[in-house]
Formats: sequence, C-alpha cells, structure tokens
Amino acid sequence: MTELIEMAHGAGGRTMAGLIDSVFRPAFDNQWLARAEDHAALAAPDGRLAMTTDTYVISPLFFPGGDIGSLAVHGTINDLATAGARPLYLSAGFVLEEGFPIQDLQRVVASMADAAKAAGVAIVTGDTKVVERGKGDGLFINTTGLGLVPDGVELSTTRVRPGDAVLVSGSLGDHGVAVMSKRSGLSFETEIESDSAALHDLVAVMAGAAAGLRALRDPTRGGLSAVLNEIAQAAGVGMRIREVDLPVKDSVRGACELLGLDPLNVANEGKMVAFCDPVDAQRLLDAMRAHPLGRDASVIGVVTDDPDRFIELETAFGGRRVVDWLAGEQLPRIC
Amino acid sequence: MTELIEMAHGAGGRTMAGLIDSVFRPAFDNQWLARAEDHAALAAPDGRLAMTTDTYVISPLFFPGGDIGSLAVHGTINDLATAGARPLYLSAGFVLEEGFPIQDLQRVVASMADAAKAAGVAIVTGDTKVVERGKGDGLFINTTGLGLVPDGVELSTTRVRPGDAVLVSGSLGDHGVAVMSKRSGLSFETEIESDSAALHDLVAVMAGAAAGLRALRDPTRGGLSAVLNEIAQAAGVGMRIREVDLPVKDSVRGACELLGLDPLNVANEGKMVAFCDPVDAQRLLDAMRAHPLGRDASVIGVVTDDPDRFIELETAFGGRRVVDWLAGEQLPRIC
Repeated sequence: MTELIEMAHGAGGRTMAGLIDSVFRPAFDNQWLARAEDHAALAAPDGRLAMTTDTYVISPLFFPGGDIGSLAVHGTINDLATAGARPLYLSAGFVLEEGFPIQDLQRVVASMADAAKAAGVAIVTGDTKVVERGKGDGLFINTTGLGLVPDGVELSTTRVRPGDAVLVSGSLGDHGVAVMSKRSGLSFETEIESDSAALHDLVAVMAGAAAGLRALRDPTRGGLSAVLNEIAQAAGVGMRIREVDLPVKDSVRGACELLGLDPLNVANEGKMVAFCDPVDAQRLLDAMRAHPLGRDASVIGVVTDDPDRFIELETAFGGRRVVDWLAGEQLPRIC
Repeated sequence: MTELIEMAHGAGGRTMAGLIDSVFRPAFDNQWLARAEDHAALAAPDGRLAMTTDTYVISPLFFPGGDIGSLAVHGTINDLATAGARPLYLSAGFVLEEGFPIQDLQRVVASMADAAKAAGVAIVTGDTKVVERGKGDGLFINTTGLGLVPDGVELSTTRVRPGDAVLVSGSLGDHGVAVMSKRSGLSFETEIESDSAALHDLVAVMAGAAAGLRALRDPTRGGLSAVLNEIAQAAGVGMRIREVDLPVKDSVRGACELLGLDPLNVANEGKMVAFCDPVDAQRLLDAMRAHPLGRDASVIGVVTDDPDRFIELETAFGGRRVVDWLAGEQLPRIC
C-alpha cells in the first residue's frame, strides 16, 4: 500500500514528528538537524556572507536529468555562486499537498541529500506544511542558502561596463527543453537532459583565474535574454551578441523549433553568464573550458555604450535584431 | 478594475520585473534589495549565527490581529528568538496563485514591511513564483531568518533537566481561536485577536535577567502540548503542569468550548515557553512581567525525572491526566 501525505503530517503533533524522523532527518543527517531545534545554531564564518532564496514549483517533479529536489539544491547554490560565494548552509521548506505519495517525497529528499552532499553543503534547518487536496500541486520546496564570499572577490552587475566581454559557460536551453518535452510527452531520438548542476566550483575556478571577472548571473527563468536585459538595465549599458557564438545543442535547437521556443528565452539550471574585463577574457575562457562544467564555454559578445540599453543580436545570416525579454509567459513552472 | 496575478508575473521577464519594482522593492526598501542581484551580500556578524525557515500557508490570509505577512515576519523572528538570537536578515519567497488580487498582495507586503521595520530586521532577498489557478491557494510565503546569538547566551532544549521551572510568557490559544473563529464565521461579544508578535526583545530581556535560562520554544502548531512533549522527548525528561496556573483568557476558553478545542493544543504566535533553573525562576518571571509582551507570564510547572517522558497535568479539580500531543489534525493551516 502506498502511504500518502495526510493533513496530520503538517499539524505539529506526533504524526509530523514521525515524518520528520523517518524521512527528513535521516536523509539530511547532520549535527544541526540532530539537535531538533526550531533553528540551526551556526558558527559565523569570518568574512562576507551571501544569502539567497528560491521556491521551486516545477512541474513535473521528475524530469530527465533531475527532479525538484536536486534542482532546489543546485538552483540556490547557483544564486550564491553569482556572488562568488562558497555555499555553506541551506534551509529547506516543504509545502506538501494532501494525498502526495510519501514514496515520491522520499525520492525527492534523497535526491536533495545527494546533491547537497556532492556540493559539500549542509541542510541545517527545515519546515513542513501540508495543504488540502486541490490547494497545492504535490510538492513545492523553498531553499534558502547562506554562503561565504572569499576575500578579494567582488562580483556585482553594477560593475559591468562598456567593452566587457560576455561569456556563457555552456550550451543554452537544455533544462527548459528537457522539462517541456517531458511535460508535453514528446520524445526525441536523443533524450534531452536538464543541465541542472551546482556551479560554485566552476565559479571558484573562474574567480581565481581572472581578476577582471566583474559579474555573474545564472540564466534560469526567462533564459539568456532575460538575464542580459536585466543586467543592461542595472548597469546602464547595451550589449551586442553574436548568434554564431551561442552554444546550442542540435537536439535542443530541433526541439525548440518543434515546440515553438527560442533557445534565448529558455531556462538553464547549470549555466553561468559572465562579464569580464576584455584583457582577462581569454584567460577566463581557458579556465572555464578546463572545468568539466565549462567545457563548452564561449565568448558570445561585448558590452556596449548604449543609452537605450538594447541587447542587439548579430544573426547567423548577418542581420541584426533587438533581443527583448519576454513580456508574457512562455514556459510556466520551469523551476 | 482589480489587477490580478497572471502566470507572466512569475515568468522571469518584464512583467515579473514590473511586479518586483512596483510591489516588493518599494515596500521592503533597503540597500540590499536596491542592488537587484539574485543574492544579498551581507557583512558577517562577529559571533554565532542562528538560521531558521518557515513557510506560511495560513487560511484565511487576513484574520483579527494580523495577516499572513505580519505572521511570516513574527513567526520566523520567534524561531530565531528561541536561540536567544537578535534577528538580522530575512528572505521572502512568495508562491502566488494565478488570479490572486494584486491589491491583496500589496496589503500583505505592506504588513510584512511594517512588521520587519518594527522589529529592526531587513528583508534582504526574495523570490516570486506563480502557479496556475487551482494549483495553489492564493498566497504562500516562506521566510528564512538569520540572527546573531549574543555572547554568553546558550539556549538548547538539551539543557533542560529535572527540577527546572516551566514558564509561559502569556495567555494561551489566542492565535488559533482568532483564526478558527474567522474561518468558521463565528463572532463573539469580545473579538478575539491573534497574539502574533515578535518576541526577540522580550527574549533579550529574559536572557539578561536570568543566567539560569536553559531553553525556549514558541508554542505554535500543536500548541503547548506539542512543545512540552517535543522537549520532553529531546531532553529525556517528564513534566508536571498545573492547570490553574495556565493563563487562558475567558473569551478564548469559551470559544474553545464552542469549537471543541483544548487550549493546550491551540497555536500561539506571540508566546514563549521557557525552561529555567529554579533558583532563577522568580527573577525570570519578574523580568517577563515587566515587559509588555510578558505581562501575563506565569510559572506553570516543573520538569520531572520521568523515564516515560510523560507530561502530567494537575487538573483544576485536583485530578491528574497525561497530556498527549495531537495524533491527528485539529487545526489545519493555522500558520
């Protein structure tokens, strides 16, 4: 018989304590959770901290290359990594829908635990809520992360300036296409997998290699086009991007055509966009390509002095067009 | 015309950026959010940190004495306060249901901002997701808190030992009864208000007054009975509680009778349960009563040496019964 989540699993009593003791605590096993307090007591690290939060509402929960659990660990680590931070601690908040199979919860939790362990980060405190059937959608997970920014690392989108090189760490669109294919029941000759991965180690290598690294951003919801437009707005600059230099896998390009998507707008979960002083760009690119998660890195364009803050794309056919960010909703519940 | 949340408000593009700029950033106005990064860069405080997370799924969103916004700030501050910590930073993660009125969101966000300002804590980073109509319930909010534990403060449920005095900081059951009354459409002669409040200042006074303060816990979901049972389990002790010393307002007692609730099981959002060396108990009680949020504090019992870890209640009529914690679900979605 499949055990299902009941309202009592969120009621604060014995049933909830049982769920915590049987599912969460053994999987995330660490000294902080073992204390069973409502908070985690942490040693304050010596240095600057980064803090970030994300709630994951992805549908479906399981997809080629990952699930909501690994995604919730990788995504939050990557937001810390945009500050150049080494991830230290995560919190995990679960919203479960009544009737959700506990076996699926265990699978997700095991995947979170594996992802956290691989990244050397501890899930130190948590919370579980249950909502009635029809008032949620299986499982939502919030993870909030705390990281340590190494001395000398100072990354900020406000540091981006005209002339900077724009790089991406690898192929675009894998995550969004993997999820959309799964959702629409499409299958391709080669299965397209999400690129979901924790990028803090790649970022440490990048920061170590290029003193001229100015800013990082992970192109998740809204894809590359959203990130470039956001940063152009924040830094008061434009950008010129070369389509031929954008790394997109053939399988992803084909799927995008079929699904009516532009790879520029599709979410990634294991990629970084980097802005770098041009004198350091080659050194940065070499360092990225020497790392397993940056093998397909590419310099894709340059920051321009543009009061209109336009992102201009030089197309493969020699034309030019402005890359706007999405106004509407193309890929709901992608993360 | 009422503006409603659309899927595009969660899509990572221009519409989402507009929501953040019009609703969240002005309300939570601070130097960290102004930087518009995916993380907040924080100065690492000198000392020990406490970290805690909670997702709020309360229904209804607005209730006498508060709303989901103030609750999401107070509740997480109070979990930090159980460590004796001064709250420093909060993150805020929103899950919005398509069709949710933006006006209601603004009201909630204003209430969060007010609560945070009053407590001297900054909401430094955030996230917004939107789910389709019928896949959520209006609004869920996760807040994760980071606090600083002052030197010399060492609170932990594992420090609780036989002979310790058990105190509560005020009347029991107000929050749960206020929410249940609103939900069931009941009205009473005197309106019962939630006790939702931030307790870090009261806790600082308590820790300063009594070196023998051993542990704190806020009796939210599952009420006093859940907290006492949890701590009995964690510390390997029993407790003996005197019913006559439990502060319960007449209005709340009456409403509980009508609603078929036991005030011991009903959630509070502005109360602390304290465990204290008996030699310091009177000093602690005096300090609590001198604080506006501890006026009705009371010593309610004593920790016992009981291998069965039972919570025994001496009833008002001179009898005795074991206070078990809730097995099932009495008050769903109370926080």
